Amino acid sequence: MEESRIMSVDTAAIETVNQEFYAAIESADLDKMTEIWAEDTADDQVSCVHPGWTLLTGRSEVLRSWALIMANTTYIQFVLTDVNTTVLGDVAVLTCVENILTAGEEGEASFAAGKVVASNVYLRTSAGWRLWMHHGSPVLQGDDDEEEEGELEH
Amino acid sequence: MEESRIMSVDTAAIETVNQEFYAAIESADLDKMTEIWAEDTADDQVSCVHPGWTLLTGRSEVLRSWALIMANTTYIQFVLTDVNTTVLGDVAVLTCVENILTAGEEGEASFAAGKVVASNVYLRTSAGWRLWMHHGSPVLQGDDDEEEEGELEH
Repeated sequence: MEESRIMSVDTAAIETVNQEFYAAIESADLDKMTEIWAEDTADDQVSCVHPGWTLLTGRSEVLRSWALIMANTTYIQFVLTDVNTTVLGDVAVLTCVENILTAGEEGEASFAAGKVVASNVYLRTSAGWRLWMHHGSPVLQGDDDEEEEGELEH
Repeated sequence: MEESRIMSVDTAAIETVNQEFYAAIESADLDKMTEIWAEDTADDQVSCVHPGWTLLTGRSEVLRSWALIMANTTYIQFVLTDVNTTVLGDVAVLTCVENILTAGEEGEASFAAGKVVASNVYLRTSAGWRLWMHHGSPVLQGDDDEEEEGELEH
């Protein structure tokens, strides 16, 4: 079904911005990250949950957190799987699995792998689709969960 | 600012459904939970991430997971804080902190407290606002995080 789906222009544009979002983390490009996040409005603010963190709200708090993460990350690489995008008018909900490879402590030649599930909400703006909400959470269950998923699906 | 905010009709309706969502978990009311979740469409499916779980998609998989959780929960109580709702046309993004009290193993008079951050996306439907996405994640950082939040805000 996924293979035969014809991707809409909106979906293609949203998934491109989503790839740019993760590329910005990989390359520690705070300018790009700043561009990708939507502007707060008078009443409402963007929100961001990093895995294991509590909720951050508002552009300045959110971008400050990304600056901190970028400053403390020597190497990070994302491989996205299960990318699914739902366009609801001028809002889009994108869910995906972030398969993450990070470097260990500086100087060490070690790597750590992790899996995070993310829900990203994008808004259609005059400048294109922009990120309104990012929620990433650690997948703490291992093989048991895979089995459980299997059970749930069948 | 929060105190003086005049809540819109939409916001009030969404926050009522959101309270019903958590009340349904507390009372293990699967019928109510079934009513609260939006219908899948031909192309798109609802999604749900329980704390520490991977992504579940589609009404049947999501509702099955709630049935499992309800069957395995002897007691759970939610106190919501930091509830914030953004209405974007026919879509709403609600973020909140779930302060959770659960009973320990059956027969024991013990309780466990936990904190989860949630992002919930609601859709305006002919039957009222319905849940399209729920993403809950464990807050793994403790006091350090509170301090970090403070730093980020100032």
